[in-house]
Amino acid sequence: MGTWNKRDDMLVHSLDPYNAEPSPDALAGQPITPVDTFYSRNHGHVPTLDPATWRLTVDGLVARPLELSLADLREKFEPHTVTATLCCAGNRRAELMAVRDIPGQTPWRSAAVSTARWSGARLRDVLAAAGPHHDARHVAFTGADHATSLDPPQPFGGSIPAAKATAAEVLLAWRMNDEPLPAVHGGPVRVIVPGYIGARSVKWLQRVTARREPSANHFQALDYRLLPADADPAATPPGAGLALGVAALNAAVLTPAPGAPLTPGTHTVHGYALAGEHRAVTRVDVSTDGGTTWRQAVLDPPAGPWAWTLWHALIHLPPGPAEIVARAWDDSAATQPEHPDALWNPLGYLNTAWSRVDVVAG
Amino acid sequence: MGTWNKRDDMLVHSLDPYNAEPSPDALAGQPITPVDTFYSRNHGHVPTLDPATWRLTVDGLVARPLELSLADLREKFEPHTVTATLCCAGNRRAELMAVRDIPGQTPWRSAAVSTARWSGARLRDVLAAAGPHHDARHVAFTGADHATSLDPPQPFGGSIPAAKATAAEVLLAWRMNDEPLPAVHGGPVRVIVPGYIGARSVKWLQRVTARREPSANHFQALDYRLLPADADPAATPPGAGLALGVAALNAAVLTPAPGAPLTPGTHTVHGYALAGEHRAVTRVDVSTDGGTTWRQAVLDPPAGPWAWTLWHALIHLPPGPAEIVARAWDDSAATQPEHPDALWNPLGYLNTAWSRVDVVAG
Repeated sequence: MGTWNKRDDMLVHSLDPYNAEPSPDALAGQPITPVDTFYSRNHGHVPTLDPATWRLTVDGLVARPLELSLADLREKFEPHTVTATLCCAGNRRAELMAVRDIPGQTPWRSAAVSTARWSGARLRDVLAAAGPHHDARHVAFTGADHATSLDPPQPFGGSIPAAKATAAEVLLAWRMNDEPLPAVHGGPVRVIVPGYIGARSVKWLQRVTARREPSANHFQALDYRLLPADADPAATPPGAGLALGVAALNAAVLTPAPGAPLTPGTHTVHGYALAGEHRAVTRVDVSTDGGTTWRQAVLDPPAGPWAWTLWHALIHLPPGPAEIVARAWDDSAATQPEHPDALWNPLGYLNTAWSRVDVVAG
Repeated sequence: MGTWNKRDDMLVHSLDPYNAEPSPDALAGQPITPVDTFYSRNHGHVPTLDPATWRLTVDGLVARPLELSLADLREKFEPHTVTATLCCAGNRRAELMAVRDIPGQTPWRSAAVSTARWSGARLRDVLAAAGPHHDARHVAFTGADHATSLDPPQPFGGSIPAAKATAAEVLLAWRMNDEPLPAVHGGPVRVIVPGYIGARSVKWLQRVTARREPSANHFQALDYRLLPADADPAATPPGAGLALGVAALNAAVLTPAPGAPLTPGTHTVHGYALAGEHRAVTRVDVSTDGGTTWRQAVLDPPAGPWAWTLWHALIHLPPGPAEIVARAWDDSAATQPEHPDALWNPLGYLNTAWSRVDVVAG
């Protein structure tokens, strides 16, 4: 067993902050990711909070500010469970870094994505208890972790629009896959915002604040933003670029692994595809000739409206090198761009290019 | 004045059925498209219906089937106005046909898209008057026009999910840009389904039918579908491929025109961008070097949540040939694919590739 009770074969990008993604084959064909396999993306030291003394503050533009214990959350609000995929906005950044370096950012491969059953209270029920004002257009979250990359260190935080915060699928969760939420995944309580980038599912939740504007926290105002390729992140004012929220259409090959030696003949390709809020994955294509011809993958029915679509396809590999390519389509018939080159951005987010894996048969 | 009171400079693809798109420069910078400029896409002869005797049937899975006159619609339901862009699913098909021919389909350029102010009754109010059953998951529309390409000719029709049919923006419209809806645009009454492909905004509306399943009409079950590149449309069973509905992210250059002789120096590029239901255009990039470097276009605030985003950008052209390229991003940070090659499909729908216009300066 590795650090934080994770599998030994996690790819650990850094120990503290703990940043690790599973081996892609550990995700393949598994609708629910075991806790010991679930990716972990952190900006600071993992806080260890005592569930007995933990308190949540609900404040800002509300009629009745609240101070809630975990027992309050359990007893005063109806419990709900949502199966949701979380995906890091930096997933697949390594392919962008192969185009041009992105200093100081984690080179995530394709497995900074996982799916769990999350249980807790609906955020909207908690907000309703506090009585949000009419002009509270955003709901901000603050965690107990401090981002060590900032000087001075600041708590991690972010916000979502009130329309999303009051949707049925957004939870304040204290259980993950039917077990207490472990510290490394934000326990005692974290936010779960299905259909959004993982960063908005704030861990070690301390505070929920109803606001007129989006959060002014560094990770909402300055980070997790899509900047144009020629922007200098160090010289970018707060609010520049596009604040990431709803997750974009994406897909990746999980197996075979890049560079895998394979026998010529028939192989099964496994992967996942994701569409953000209000979109569904409708088709996944797989090519072994760089995208000139495609065959459709078989899509597994998702575990729910907020879960990834796992897929597999049979391919035939003649002797020699081959490039396996995958792309997804959503229900608007939109599909992914071909190359990461034209998607490169200074913070390395949202690589939604076709997934490409080079293998050799023979 | 041309056919159907359209501008003389319309590109008329066929006279009967009347299929015509405006000159792209007639759309540039105009938030609302005048009626004489609005594109027209038809599958049969334009019916001329007498508004005084026109009747709408509302039937299917409803408690109280209705027969409504235009006076009933006007008097019994609250009027609403929505500014909405309609876009043909075959818009930009000519670029797909340049990759590989698509026999029997109209070679739309980039202007099978227009925006108008539509006024009428909300479909949801009319449905509520009829009392739809709980299991009416789809709402089908039938027009008075007969598609002459089918043997025997069949009425044009289609359907949308009930969740969309009961959304506030879906209208049964009898006015267009504050004038009575002209026959060539579906008068006396047509459906307007903002955020969906144009084909679902059925013209010359005769019948609204609440159903358990999507419409079995040819244009829902067999046409307006994204088929895989290797499918034979003539051998495709009903329901194959992806039924098009929600519009996909797209953008195009309107001016300068392809092949336009320009003086070297600074020019303004004009264009439009569209994102379907639940998405917004957040950024448009323009390149003059084939997509190696980009500058951001200036986005005009849209005329409403269902209207296109018009944009413009200053470019500098040195003497010689140049390729002007444009692409849009939506609020999930998804962007468009590079080339139409990988988007080619047997019915020629949804070319969402980067828009490319070759010009020569000097």
